[in-house]
Amino acid sequence: MSIAPQAQFSLTLRVEIPSAPGSLGRLTSAIGSAGGSLGAIDLVEVRGQRTLREITVSCANQDHWRDVVKAVEELEDVELIGTTDRTFELHRGGKVHTGLKIPVGTRDELSMAYTPGVARVCNEIHENPDAVFDFTIKANTVAVVSDGTAVLGLGDIGPEAAMPVMEGKAMLFKEFGDVDAMPICLSTKDPDEIVAVCKAISPGFGGINLEDISSPRCFEIENRLIEELDIPVFHDDQHGTAIVVLAALLNACRLTGRRIEDLSVAMVGAGAAGVAVAKILMTAGITQIVACDRFGAIHAARIDYADASMNAPKAWLAENTNPQGRNGSPADILEGTDLFVGLSGPGIIGAKDLERMNPDPFVFAMANPDPEVPPEEAAPYVGVMATGRSDYPNQINNVLAFPGVFRGAFDARATKITEEMKLAAAQGIAQVVGDDELAEDYIVPSVFNRDVSPAVAAAVQEEWQRTATPVESR
Amino acid sequence: MSIAPQAQFSLTLRVEIPSAPGSLGRLTSAIGSAGGSLGAIDLVEVRGQRTLREITVSCANQDHWRDVVKAVEELEDVELIGTTDRTFELHRGGKVHTGLKIPVGTRDELSMAYTPGVARVCNEIHENPDAVFDFTIKANTVAVVSDGTAVLGLGDIGPEAAMPVMEGKAMLFKEFGDVDAMPICLSTKDPDEIVAVCKAISPGFGGINLEDISSPRCFEIENRLIEELDIPVFHDDQHGTAIVVLAALLNACRLTGRRIEDLSVAMVGAGAAGVAVAKILMTAGITQIVACDRFGAIHAARIDYADASMNAPKAWLAENTNPQGRNGSPADILEGTDLFVGLSGPGIIGAKDLERMNPDPFVFAMANPDPEVPPEEAAPYVGVMATGRSDYPNQINNVLAFPGVFRGAFDARATKITEEMKLAAAQGIAQVVGDDELAEDYIVPSVFNRDVSPAVAAAVQEEWQRTATPVESR
Repeated sequence: MSIAPQAQFSLTLRVEIPSAPGSLGRLTSAIGSAGGSLGAIDLVEVRGQRTLREITVSCANQDHWRDVVKAVEELEDVELIGTTDRTFELHRGGKVHTGLKIPVGTRDELSMAYTPGVARVCNEIHENPDAVFDFTIKANTVAVVSDGTAVLGLGDIGPEAAMPVMEGKAMLFKEFGDVDAMPICLSTKDPDEIVAVCKAISPGFGGINLEDISSPRCFEIENRLIEELDIPVFHDDQHGTAIVVLAALLNACRLTGRRIEDLSVAMVGAGAAGVAVAKILMTAGITQIVACDRFGAIHAARIDYADASMNAPKAWLAENTNPQGRNGSPADILEGTDLFVGLSGPGIIGAKDLERMNPDPFVFAMANPDPEVPPEEAAPYVGVMATGRSDYPNQINNVLAFPGVFRGAFDARATKITEEMKLAAAQGIAQVVGDDELAEDYIVPSVFNRDVSPAVAAAVQEEWQRTATPVESR
Repeated sequence: MSIAPQAQFSLTLRVEIPSAPGSLGRLTSAIGSAGGSLGAIDLVEVRGQRTLREITVSCANQDHWRDVVKAVEELEDVELIGTTDRTFELHRGGKVHTGLKIPVGTRDELSMAYTPGVARVCNEIHENPDAVFDFTIKANTVAVVSDGTAVLGLGDIGPEAAMPVMEGKAMLFKEFGDVDAMPICLSTKDPDEIVAVCKAISPGFGGINLEDISSPRCFEIENRLIEELDIPVFHDDQHGTAIVVLAALLNACRLTGRRIEDLSVAMVGAGAAGVAVAKILMTAGITQIVACDRFGAIHAARIDYADASMNAPKAWLAENTNPQGRNGSPADILEGTDLFVGLSGPGIIGAKDLERMNPDPFVFAMANPDPEVPPEEAAPYVGVMATGRSDYPNQINNVLAFPGVFRGAFDARATKITEEMKLAAAQGIAQVVGDDELAEDYIVPSVFNRDVSPAVAAAVQEEWQRTATPVESR
């Protein structure tokens, strides 16, 4: 869909050109004519009459690279020494590291941080188990756990190939939540084993963020871990998405003066995120939700006739949503609704189908990279639109939620993340957008807005402290 | 044993004293008279006629604290505001953290490090699994895995209480080997489960350092993991100790002109380290080794009469050492030997027993904190002495080995750590001590000698490259 140059497809070209005036201009013109977008232009070295330069060029895709490289190669007197894929280069050696909080460069330092002094701290924790939160990294460290079965839109690519995503997640935890995070990618897909591994490694972690585990296994794994562990367990694909959807919806209502509990919702996509979105919307007071999978609306009768496409989470949707038992295609269930939630793929509905919705509807079309309906085509029919993309307004991006959620849970030393804490997180995000800023194209704050994570953390911490029973709050 | 002030027992005293001349002198004199050793003296604030100071005092032990505090409290005109245990304070919040290698502060940066650009890197690894070593943290990251069953000399204190040690180990990996290391403490003691967890988390790690797992379980766990994984697995309590013992012995031989293969060895302690030391000494050419547990010499007959104290590793010692089938107590087996290796506890032999050894013997008494025989008492009877302590010459400390061993294995992208690589590591350590430096009290370099880890890494890497078959060296 996109043909604009993107940073993810940027190249560094290493070229030698004549040192004479005009040479660089001819080169950059050629790159521009081939559609490349110029970034940094560095001078590496002047070699007599020749100059070595490194030029960063963003392209639309990998095919486009060939056009740009060809345009450079065809220039007389320009020698292309080499090209570097900047995204790959950036990932070389990985994206996170470990570091020391205190020095161990002298005998005294070593004797306090390690043997013999460390034994005193070990004894303290042995005698008073709660001290593990005071004297180890546990209180601020999350394991980002995946089995690599549902990585981005790539599917089951395995634990090694999932690592770059989990490392990226670990970066975002640190950058936006000051949470230390370690990627843990598992060479097993067996739910029992995944649960066993998470439990086994839990002594040193203060929380577990499950990531990119395929549905419906993700539900069982998360539920069992929440049940069996006394640290927060959070499947971000479910709840991160749900929290940000609710945040966007709260602000869409605030902008338009509607009451959230009056809304009727059509949702396409009944995977991990779909069920979580339905739950959080219900917690927020919405009663009219119809969810669709690719076979159509999900309703109680589909349980009765033992539809082979049903699974536990869809059965939950069938039992808890669609109170009128509506049936039909995604386009059919749009009829008379106020909010469309798309968690599926492009083309599942047409822009004209949006006419069946109530006036000025909210359309959250979150399929990535291509939304269920292109924003340009949907524009005439919608009141407020949000997508999963960074190049349109109102990006629904989990990074608005998870760093602050864990920051808040860690600050509160919460033993779990309740539905109420997720609701509070959504309110925290929504409130970052001021009344004077709120607009159709600004119901969701930017992922780079540094106010978001502290607002989420404060809301989550406060909610835990408000509702946790004395037993739960240790 | 020790009554000298130690950094591990250091306090920070927060005191308010008169601003008048002489006040600080009276205070420090009182602390000195009570046996406290003064460290930093900081001025926090002058409050009119009173001055707030923080004074660091090292003590001999926790009982000694009371004496020092009492001496301060008894001073007229001095108010003790509070005391801080510096070792505990240093551990507060843990000792390691995670960090970002590249920035994610702009949209372009995020789109390359995370979505959508990260998908290109995931696909590359999916198509070419070996690329996980190029584009993730795997190639430089070790898991420091423990079940907390044999932590320092503290025994089975559990995974939470083991965390401070594993964090310390992670610090040393980073500080001395530039290896990223993550503590992983396990809430299971079952060897099958420990093996399963290590295998499950292995996709994101380039190596596994097993730590403080009790014997004989540690042998089975390590052997199975070496067999079943294609990344280095190294039980440091065994091999780290063995490498440094051999390094010390190589230099003791170099100093005294003896040939290692001519030596006869008496060893007390048949736990994890004992078996590994016996193996590495045999790899180095020694044929005469008699090992002892607390029941006496280990020999083949003890297998025959089904001694209940025997286990698999002791059976290995019985089958592979003590060719003359010698019997007797630790003191008995010293008779006619050249090297004593102590891996047990204090008092197991007396200083006078060393007279039974050959002239000018090597005595490596490594029990911690109190050696098998006190160096002061042993002095008249020994040629070269080493201990596990930092306050005597020739400290046998694993930190001389493990950072460089993994650094070298990672640099070579070795799939395991062979016996030959351990031998090379020992030679690497030994060679750091120059011919002109070598002396009875300097056969082992300092743990803070920054030449050690690179020397070990280079030796280990070279040895892997020399001996690895094409298949093994991927």
